[in-house]
Amino acid sequence: MGQRYLARVHVTLKPGVLDPQGEAVKQGLVTLGYEGVKEVRVGKYLEVLLEAVDTEQAYQQVEEMCRRLLANPVIEKYSYEIAKAGEESKV
Amino acid sequence: MGQRYLARVHVTLKPGVLDPQGEAVKQGLVTLGYEGVKEVRVGKYLEVLLEAVDTEQAYQQVEEMCRRLLANPVIEKYSYEIAKAGEESKV
Repeated sequence: MGQRYLARVHVTLKPGVLDPQGEAVKQGLVTLGYEGVKEVRVGKYLEVLLEAVDTEQAYQQVEEMCRRLLANPVIEKYSYEIAKAGEESKV
Repeated sequence: MGQRYLARVHVTLKPGVLDPQGEAVKQGLVTLGYEGVKEVRVGKYLEVLLEAVDTEQAYQQVEEMCRRLLANPVIEKYSYEIAKAGEESKV
Protein backbone atom coordinates (compact mmCIF):
# COMPACT_ATOMS: atom_id res chain seq x y z
CA MET A 1 0.00 0.00 0.00
CA GLY A 2 1.75 3.22 -1.18
CA GLN A 3 0.83 6.81 -0.58
CA ARG A 4 -2.14 8.36 -2.44
CA TYR A 5 -1.56 11.43 -4.58
CA LEU A 6 -3.89 13.74 -6.51
CA ALA A 7 -2.48 15.06 -9.77
CA ARG A 8 -4.16 18.04 -11.40
CA VAL A 9 -3.36 18.09 -15.08
CA HIS A 10 -4.00 20.89 -17.57
CA VAL A 11 -3.84 19.94 -21.25
CA THR A 12 -4.07 22.94 -23.57
CA LEU A 13 -3.50 23.59 -27.24
CA LYS A 14 -0.09 24.93 -28.19
CA PRO A 15 -0.07 28.62 -29.17
CA GLY A 16 -0.88 29.05 -32.85
CA VAL A 17 -2.88 25.82 -33.08
CA LEU A 18 -6.39 26.48 -34.39
CA ASP A 19 -9.10 26.02 -31.74
CA PRO A 20 -12.47 25.41 -33.46
CA GLN A 21 -14.06 24.52 -30.13
CA GLY A 22 -12.82 27.77 -28.59
CA GLU A 23 -14.08 29.69 -31.62
CA ALA A 24 -17.52 28.08 -31.25
CA VAL A 25 -17.69 28.98 -27.55
CA LYS A 26 -16.63 32.54 -28.38
CA GLN A 27 -19.39 32.85 -30.99
CA GLY A 28 -21.86 31.50 -28.47
CA LEU A 29 -20.83 34.06 -25.86
CA VAL A 30 -20.93 36.95 -28.37
CA THR A 31 -24.40 35.80 -29.48
CA LEU A 32 -25.49 35.91 -25.83
CA GLY A 33 -24.40 39.56 -25.79
CA TYR A 34 -20.86 39.36 -24.41
CA GLU A 35 -19.28 41.43 -27.21
CA GLY A 36 -16.22 42.05 -25.02
CA VAL A 37 -15.04 38.47 -25.48
CA LYS A 38 -11.93 38.57 -27.66
CA GLU A 39 -10.73 34.97 -27.58
CA VAL A 40 -11.57 31.61 -25.97
CA ARG A 41 -9.20 28.65 -25.68
CA VAL A 42 -10.64 25.32 -24.57
CA GLY A 43 -8.53 22.62 -22.95
CA LYS A 44 -8.83 19.59 -20.70
CA TYR A 45 -8.54 19.53 -16.92
CA LEU A 46 -7.99 16.10 -15.37
CA GLU A 47 -7.76 14.98 -11.78
CA VAL A 48 -5.89 11.69 -11.41
CA LEU A 49 -5.95 9.89 -8.07
CA LEU A 50 -3.03 7.48 -7.96
CA GLU A 51 -1.07 5.36 -5.52
CA ALA A 52 2.72 5.63 -5.63
CA VAL A 53 5.68 4.63 -3.46
CA ASP A 54 6.73 8.26 -3.01
CA THR A 55 6.39 11.73 -4.51
CA GLU A 56 9.21 11.13 -6.95
CA GLN A 57 7.48 8.08 -8.43
CA ALA A 58 4.18 9.98 -8.60
CA TYR A 59 5.83 12.77 -10.61
CA GLN A 60 7.60 10.29 -12.89
CA GLN A 61 4.38 8.36 -13.60
CA VAL A 62 2.24 11.46 -14.22
CA GLU A 63 4.88 12.80 -16.64
CA GLU A 64 4.76 9.51 -18.54
CA MET A 65 0.94 9.44 -18.50
CA CYS A 66 0.86 12.92 -20.05
CA ARG A 67 3.36 11.99 -22.75
CA ARG A 68 1.83 8.62 -23.57
CA LEU A 69 -1.92 9.23 -23.29
CA LEU A 70 -3.29 12.43 -21.78
CA ALA A 71 -1.77 14.93 -24.22
CA ASN A 72 -1.17 14.85 -27.96
CA PRO A 73 2.43 16.13 -28.13
CA VAL A 74 1.96 17.40 -31.69
CA ILE A 75 -0.69 20.00 -30.85
CA GLU A 76 -1.00 20.05 -27.07
CA LYS A 77 1.10 21.11 -24.09
CA TYR A 78 0.54 19.97 -20.53
CA SER A 79 1.28 21.04 -16.97
CA TYR A 80 0.44 19.43 -13.65
CA GLU A 81 0.56 19.82 -9.92
CA ILE A 82 0.72 16.87 -7.55
CA ALA A 83 -0.21 16.85 -3.88
CA LYS A 84 -0.74 14.12 -1.36
CA ALA A 85 -4.41 13.17 -1.58
CA GLY A 86 -6.41 15.11 0.99
CA GLU A 87 -3.81 17.90 1.17
CA GLU A 88 -4.69 19.48 -2.17
CA SER A 89 -6.05 23.04 -2.36
CA LYS A 90 -9.59 23.36 -3.67
CA VAL A 91 -10.23 24.23 -7.40
CA MET B 1 -11.69 50.68 -24.96
CA GLY B 2 -11.92 48.89 -21.55
CA GLN B 3 -9.31 46.89 -19.72
CA ARG B 4 -8.42 43.36 -20.90
CA TYR B 5 -8.83 40.47 -18.49
CA LEU B 6 -7.95 36.77 -18.70
CA ALA B 7 -10.42 34.45 -16.98
CA ARG B 8 -9.33 30.88 -16.23
CA VAL B 9 -12.38 28.71 -15.84
CA HIS B 10 -12.54 25.14 -14.53
CA VAL B 11 -15.72 23.21 -15.29
CA THR B 12 -15.87 19.84 -13.54
CA LEU B 13 -18.50 17.22 -12.88
CA LYS B 14 -20.28 17.42 -9.55
CA PRO B 15 -19.27 14.72 -7.06
CA GLY B 16 -21.33 11.56 -7.58
CA VAL B 17 -22.00 12.25 -11.27
CA LEU B 18 -20.84 9.32 -13.43
CA ASP B 19 -17.76 10.16 -15.53
CA PRO B 20 -17.56 7.71 -18.48
CA GLN B 21 -14.77 9.75 -20.04
CA GLY B 22 -12.78 9.60 -16.82
CA GLU B 23 -13.41 5.87 -16.59
CA ALA B 24 -12.16 5.39 -20.16
CA VAL B 25 -8.97 7.37 -19.44
CA LYS B 26 -8.45 5.34 -16.27
CA GLN B 27 -8.77 2.05 -18.21
CA GLY B 28 -6.31 3.40 -20.78
CA LEU B 29 -3.78 4.26 -18.10
CA VAL B 30 -4.17 0.89 -16.34
CA THR B 31 -3.74 -0.87 -19.69
CA LEU B 32 -0.50 1.08 -20.20
CA GLY B 33 0.69 -0.39 -16.89
CA TYR B 34 -0.22 2.32 -14.38
CA GLU B 35 -2.07 -0.01 -12.01
CA GLY B 36 -1.76 2.58 -9.22
CA VAL B 37 -4.38 4.80 -10.85
CA LYS B 38 -7.50 4.70 -8.67
CA GLU B 39 -9.72 7.33 -10.29
CA VAL B 40 -9.71 9.87 -13.11
CA ARG B 41 -12.10 12.83 -13.43
CA VAL B 42 -12.12 14.75 -16.69
CA GLY B 43 -13.31 18.34 -16.92
CA LYS B 44 -12.94 21.44 -19.09
CA TYR B 45 -10.41 24.22 -18.71
CA LEU B 46 -11.17 27.42 -20.57
CA GLU B 47 -9.22 30.64 -20.97
CA VAL B 48 -11.44 33.59 -21.86
CA LEU B 49 -9.83 36.86 -22.94
CA LEU B 50 -12.38 39.63 -22.47
CA GLU B 51 -12.60 43.39 -22.37
CA ALA B 52 -14.49 44.95 -19.47
CA VAL B 53 -14.89 48.37 -17.90
CA ASP B 54 -13.41 47.19 -14.60
CA THR B 55 -12.68 44.09 -12.54
CA GLU B 56 -16.16 44.06 -11.06
CA GLN B 57 -17.78 43.91 -14.50
CA ALA B 58 -15.33 41.21 -15.59
CA TYR B 59 -16.32 39.04 -12.60
CA GLN B 60 -20.02 39.67 -13.17
CA GLN B 61 -19.80 38.74 -16.87
CA VAL B 62 -17.71 35.60 -16.31
CA GLU B 63 -20.16 34.42 -13.63
CA GLU B 64 -23.02 34.87 -16.11
CA MET B 65 -21.08 33.15 -18.91
CA CYS B 66 -20.52 30.12 -16.67
CA ARG B 67 -24.18 29.94 -15.68
CA ARG B 68 -25.58 30.53 -19.15
CA LEU B 69 -23.19 28.62 -21.42
CA LEU B 70 -19.90 27.25 -20.10
CA ALA B 71 -21.27 24.89 -17.43
CA ASN B 72 -24.32 22.65 -17.28
CA PRO B 73 -25.67 23.51 -13.81
CA VAL B 74 -27.41 20.13 -13.49
CA ILE B 75 -24.23 18.03 -13.56
CA GLU B 76 -21.31 20.47 -13.50
CA LYS B 77 -19.75 22.92 -11.08
CA TYR B 78 -17.41 25.74 -12.06
CA SER B 79 -14.73 27.94 -10.59
CA TYR B 80 -12.65 30.72 -12.10
CA GLU B 81 -9.83 33.14 -11.50
CA ILE B 82 -9.59 36.49 -13.28
CA ALA B 83 -6.48 38.58 -13.74
CA LYS B 84 -5.66 41.59 -15.86
CA ALA B 85 -4.40 40.23 -19.15
CA GLY B 86 -0.62 39.99 -19.11
CA GLU B 87 -0.50 39.80 -15.30
CA GLU B 88 -1.76 36.23 -15.06
CA SER B 89 0.47 33.48 -13.58
CA LYS B 90 1.50 30.73 -15.97
CA VAL B 91 -0.47 27.40 -16.07
